[in-house]
Order: sequence, then structure tokens, then C-alpha cells
Amino acid sequence: MPRRTNGVGVQAEDAQICVVMVGLPARGKSYIAQKAQRYLRWLSIPARTFNVGNYRRNDAPQPTADFFDMNNAEGERKRRAAAEAAVADMLQWFKSGGVVGILDATNSTKERRQWVFETVSKEGIEVIFVESKCDNEDLIMGNIRDVKTTSPDYKGQDPDAAALDFRNRIRNYEKIYKSINEDGDEGDYTYLKIMDVGKQVIINRIQDYLQSRIVYYLINLHIRPRSVWLSRHGESMLNLEGRIGGDAALSYRGEEYARKLPDLVRQSVGDDRPLTVWTSTLKRTIATARHLPKHYNQLQWKALDELDAGVCDGLTYQEIKDQYPDDFAARDDDKYNYRYRGGESYRDVVIRLEPIIMELERSEDILIISHQAVIRCIYAYFMQKDQEDSPWLPVPLHTLIKLTPRAYGTDEEKTSANIKAVSTWRGKGSTAKHEDPVPEGGI
Amino acid sequence: MPRRTNGVGVQAEDAQICVVMVGLPARGKSYIAQKAQRYLRWLSIPARTFNVGNYRRNDAPQPTADFFDMNNAEGERKRRAAAEAAVADMLQWFKSGGVVGILDATNSTKERRQWVFETVSKEGIEVIFVESKCDNEDLIMGNIRDVKTTSPDYKGQDPDAAALDFRNRIRNYEKIYKSINEDGDEGDYTYLKIMDVGKQVIINRIQDYLQSRIVYYLINLHIRPRSVWLSRHGESMLNLEGRIGGDAALSYRGEEYARKLPDLVRQSVGDDRPLTVWTSTLKRTIATARHLPKHYNQLQWKALDELDAGVCDGLTYQEIKDQYPDDFAARDDDKYNYRYRGGESYRDVVIRLEPIIMELERSEDILIISHQAVIRCIYAYFMQKDQEDSPWLPVPLHTLIKLTPRAYGTDEEKTSANIKAVSTWRGKGSTAKHEDPVPEGGI
Repeated sequence: MPRRTNGVGVQAEDAQICVVMVGLPARGKSYIAQKAQRYLRWLSIPARTFNVGNYRRNDAPQPTADFFDMNNAEGERKRRAAAEAAVADMLQWFKSGGVVGILDATNSTKERRQWVFETVSKEGIEVIFVESKCDNEDLIMGNIRDVKTTSPDYKGQDPDAAALDFRNRIRNYEKIYKSINEDGDEGDYTYLKIMDVGKQVIINRIQDYLQSRIVYYLINLHIRPRSVWLSRHGESMLNLEGRIGGDAALSYRGEEYARKLPDLVRQSVGDDRPLTVWTSTLKRTIATARHLPKHYNQLQWKALDELDAGVCDGLTYQEIKDQYPDDFAARDDDKYNYRYRGGESYRDVVIRLEPIIMELERSEDILIISHQAVIRCIYAYFMQKDQEDSPWLPVPLHTLIKLTPRAYGTDEEKTSANIKAVSTWRGKGSTAKHEDPVPEGGI
Repeated sequence: MPRRTNGVGVQAEDAQICVVMVGLPARGKSYIAQKAQRYLRWLSIPARTFNVGNYRRNDAPQPTADFFDMNNAEGERKRRAAAEAAVADMLQWFKSGGVVGILDATNSTKERRQWVFETVSKEGIEVIFVESKCDNEDLIMGNIRDVKTTSPDYKGQDPDAAALDFRNRIRNYEKIYKSINEDGDEGDYTYLKIMDVGKQVIINRIQDYLQSRIVYYLINLHIRPRSVWLSRHGESMLNLEGRIGGDAALSYRGEEYARKLPDLVRQSVGDDRPLTVWTSTLKRTIATARHLPKHYNQLQWKALDELDAGVCDGLTYQEIKDQYPDDFAARDDDKYNYRYRGGESYRDVVIRLEPIIMELERSEDILIISHQAVIRCIYAYFMQKDQEDSPWLPVPLHTLIKLTPRAYGTDEEKTSANIKAVSTWRGKGSTAKHEDPVPEGGI
């Protein structure tokens, strides 16, 4: 029985990987873990992060720095117990079909790493260590300020006192910390060492495709502040008729949106920030972008074209239901996986968007002008939406969405152009041409 | 004016990169250079290799090992002159629009690297050093045997004497060789260091997307012996009618091919080698693969589906000419770039095949069962066919093609199943349903 690729050429059954984070506190380990988990899930690869700190907090909710002193036997015992509990849960999760488990902890000694490696690999699970090594004081201080003063460890405490204590905690870790293979005796491990946020990267003994995908994704991440703006094209002539797909021109109101978009963008982006604009290759996104300032770089991507509706291209939902009743029902039943005859599924769109996501991660400020299904998929990546929900998200016309990646998630800001447009959202089972979205659901 | 992306998100105008190879002789530098050039050209990025040895041979066609002794002033002068001539030509080529120039030489001293870096970067061209560092004796001996005894430097000489002399040449290089940043004073360079054929990789200060693409490609290469087999699906019902695209079942003769394919494959692959089979998601490739042994892993890729003919899907060429005469002419005029209305161009297909090529490079033996246009694109990658030629290559039905990558190119072997099938090749301007390919042209 042939198995379908999930788009990165990996069969979930073939490999189970434990990503073991390594590094001092405030080096962005949790950020990396969280990004990797989100990326893998978006690609339908079951991934889960096991944060040892969360386990430790059961036993020691708000420890002070001396809890992390290597001479504190009680602290050492509790921290060890937390690591054991996290690893035990992770192994359980692997048994139930997990593919990439991420152990988010400092794992800062050779002994700890050896213990993790042996415990995990004797269950037939591959281990890849991912170390973030960073001596950049600004960056560390930024991390301490932004993240750690909002950590549950310091909840309700004075931020300055918290930051001071946290620096002392780091000092205790520094006393025992060994960078991976620093002594040359960990060269048999598979590892990725990211130094000073990607200035230098060492990749050791990467073996298979899934490992390589994870590594390539992680070395493309950066942490410079930036935003991604998303907009659908202006209302099109086919939108007015309630027909899907096609390559129509903008409606009168769609043209109005195109003329207003430069102001909308300027207000959200600011005057001085350089912006790159990506459109699809279809008329309605190119027309929507055409009044934007000339100094914005513009690129057209075929990969940003709307989901291909195959034989249903250009039809209304009523026509689809009349002509292909089984397909109409099958799509409502599993919209993420349903592939139009001769066309695409949402899953297919995610696969072709993967290089776009990789390029987005590498880039600074980008404005994407694309289509309903494509925007849903990109939005789902940033906001970690489930596959059951993402194909039903309302993405109204004539609205600019600003997404700003943060340490533990993505901020969202929505600006309406206040130009009327039809709704192209459709509820399950409905064949209405234009229907108001159910209020819940996002975007 | 919006510029189209070439599919890797890079605008050719934005960056010019000089890839400077580093490493002792027989470390696979020329192999890496040649692969990178082929990959970049396939992605429409103007790339060219400048081999300093070729320049040196003008002056010193068949030097013995002592020519490469650091104390040989005459040899040193000539080798320096060759490097200067190669770099001068490369800079000239950059001025005429070159994007990635590859300087293929040992560049084994810090002084030489500094000279290249300064000479090239003062012209505004980015420099990335790519070092292959390898101490694996088997591998080096293999390289010496396979490649260097067939080098023009030793043409007409006894292979054993040539190998001996070549080893002495390497020894002379070893006396002065410094691995990049070995002393810690080359940390400002952008470099990729590949150790023991990828066992460990160091990536230093990679800056932009094109650099990152090159690096990712190079770290995915391997040199274990393997082959790639290509086959079109068996003859389909639409092939019989001379109609393009669609999702038809196999014809009677197409079924015969599917039944015979296991034997054909077994004879070419051998009994014991594990093989992975990739098909498209269309019926005719899946049906063609269905009698293959169960122990072969099978994967279906949407990215291997036939070029999407958009509104022309399911038509004959005569019908296309009648209904879309301008399109018919435009396609013949520039078949690589012509995009069917609502469909794809060959250029689009190459873009969606890029992840497939990356996965192929990482893999061992793979059999791909796909479609005429897709096979043309994959074949063009391995055989470095020009964009003007590749859309016209004959790829007969019921034929198994075996491609085996070698140090300086790709071996090709073609086996016919001896089962008759219509020809789907079409000459420029023709609307014939079935037409014999012009004999020249490849595959």
C-alpha cells in the first residue's frame, strides 16, 4: 500500500527523533523549541515540547538562585526528578505515535546529556542535540528582561529583584556548563550548535531527511524584530458572483481597496521601514499591489496562487453541489484533506507553501497579498491553528493583518479598510453565495 | 515593475557571489563545484566554474610533483599567474551579468585566500569559502584512482606512476595547507567547512538567501554510489487519443508495461538493493507502479504530477491550436517560459521540483515514475540540458532510464520494454497526434 508523503518526503512511521535542547538560561532555547514544534505540526508531523522547568515547578514553584547551585543537594535532587519525569512522559508520548519530541531544558553537563542520550536511544529513538551558545550581553539581557521577568518562577515579584536573581541563577549554571563536544569527547553525537544566534553554526553527524529539515529550519530562524503583513486581494468580479477560483479583475470596490492600501500599509509599517511585497501570479493580487510605493521591492510567486479547485474552478458552491454532490459532501467532511478533482487540497497548499515559510523566516518585513486559502495556511503556521479549523477561518476582504513574532507566540493586529465587500466565507453544508462568518473562529 | 521570482526567491540582480573552493587535491572540490554549477543553472541562476588548473595547464601542461613544491619559485610564479588569470576572467564574467562564480582551486594558504577575498570583494561581490576537509584515506585513494589518473595532467602516462606522482603533489600541498580559520583569525569570512564528506559541517556568517540555498544544497550532497531510475507511466487512454493532461487509466499496452516493469527494474537494479519508488498522485503512475515488489517503499508526490495545462487540459494539440491559436504559437516560441492559462510553465515545474531534487540528492537508489514534462525537467538537472532544449527532449513511453552520478557528470543507460506505445513527442509547430521524435536531442 503506497503511503503518501507528507510533503517533506518523510514518512512519520520511519523515524522518531528527540531534539534535546542545550544551553544556559536566557539563550532562546524555549523560543527555538516552540518554533520547531509549530513548524513540524504545520507539516503534519506530530511534535511536542517537554519543558523540564514546568515539571520542576510542581515541586519547587518559585525557587531562588541558590536552588540551582550545584552544591544544593535538595535542589539537585528535585531538578533531576523533574528531568526524569519529563523524559518518562516523552517516552510514553513516543509510544503513542509521537514523531519529534523536544526536551526543553539546559542539559548543560556532559553527564546529563549522556543520561538523556542513553535513556532515549535505547528505546530506538534518534537523539539530536540543539545547543544555543551565546555570549552577546545585549541579547542575553534582552531575554532576561522580556521573558524571564514574566516567567511563572517570578510571578508577583519585583521585576528588578527577579532579574537580579535570574542572573545569579545563570551564574550557577555557568559554573558547571560545558558546551557540547567542547572537550572533543562528544563527537559521536548528532548535534547542531548555533553560536551567537547563527553567526556560526556547527552541524555534526546529521543522518536522515527529517533531521536535516529540522536543522535547515533552525538555521534559517533569526530573532531580529519584524512583522509579516497579510492581505487578500481586493474584491474581484468573481467574488461578486460567488464563484471560486478563476483569474478575474478587481471589482469597483476592489479597485478602491487597491488605491487605499498604500495608506493602510504606511500607517501600519511606518514611513522609513523597507518593505518587500509578495503577490501571487494572478491578476487580482497584482492589481491590488500596483499602487504601492515604487521603492517597495515586489515579487510574484506561483506558490502564492489560490488553492486550485480543479474541475470546480469558476463554479458557485451551488453549482458544485449540483454537479459533484459527493465531492461537495466529502469536502465538508474533511476540508483539510479533500483534494478537488484535478486540483488541490489544503494539505497540498501547505506543501507548496513550505519554501515560502522558510523564506519568510529568513526575511525582514514582508507584505503578502494573496488568496483566502493561502492566507489561511500562512496564518495557521504563525498562530498554530489546527488542521480541522484552519480551512474554516474567516479572512475578510479589504482587511490588513499584521503578525509580529514574539518569544512565545505571535501578536496579531487587524485593520479594516472600511470598504464594503462581499463575504466569501462559507459555513459547513452551506451553498450561499455570500454568508456572514460565524463570529468565533479567529482572524 | 514587479519582478518575478525565479523560484528560490532570489532576484538575480541583488547578489553576486564568488564561491571559493578550499582544500587539498583529491578532496572532491571539482565534484562539489560542478554539482553546484549544475544546480544553480537549473534554477536559472547564471553560474560558472573557473578551474585554476585549466589556466595553469596553458603554461605547464603536465607538471610533475616538484612543480608544486613551495620552494619551486618558477612553479609558484606560474601557479600564481594561473590564479590571477582565472580571477580576472571571473571578474569580467561578473561584469557581464554572472551571479555565482565558482573558483575551483586549492586556495590552501591564508595568504592566497586573503588575496582572493580582497580582489573579489572590492568589486562588490560577496565571497563564500567552501572547504572540503577530509582525512579518510579510502576516500582520498578512491578520488586519486578514479579522477586524477584520468586528469589531463597525466594523460598518456602510466596510471601507477601518475598516482604516485599525484600523491607526492598532495604532500607538497600538505606542507603549506591551512584549514580555514584553523588559527582563529579567519572568523570574519563567510565560510562552509565540510569535514569527512559531511560528517561534520561548520557554517560561518552565512548572510543572505542565495548563500543559504547554496549551503543547504551542498550539505545535502553525498558521494555514496547510487543510481536514479526514471520512467514515464505506461501508455494511457488519453495518450492513445493524443490528448494532454487528464487523469486517465492505462491502455491495454500500458497495463502490459506495468506488468513487465518489475522484471525490467530487477534486471537493472539487482535483487538485493533496496529501492524506493516515487510516483505522482495521478492514476496512471500509481497503476504503473502497482506490480512492483511489496518490499519497495512507495511514496506519492503531488510535486511529481504532470505539468498543469490549465484550460488546455484534456485537449489535443489541434484543438489547442484551434481554440487558443495565440497560445499555441507563444508556447512554441518559448516553451520553457510559456505558462498555460490557469496552468504551468516548465519554469513553474522546475520550481516545484526543487525539493524533489534536494531529496534525491540526499537519497540512495530511487525509481521515479512520473510524466513527460516532469521527467524532462529531472533529466535536464542531471544531464545539464539547456532550458531551450529540455522541453523538447524525447522521453519515449515504456522505457526505463538509469542515471548514475559520477565525479564529473552523469552516466545514462536506457532500456526499452519492447512494448509498443504511441509517441507523445511533438515537434515545433506540429499538431500531429502521434509523431516520431527527431532523432537528435537526447534521452
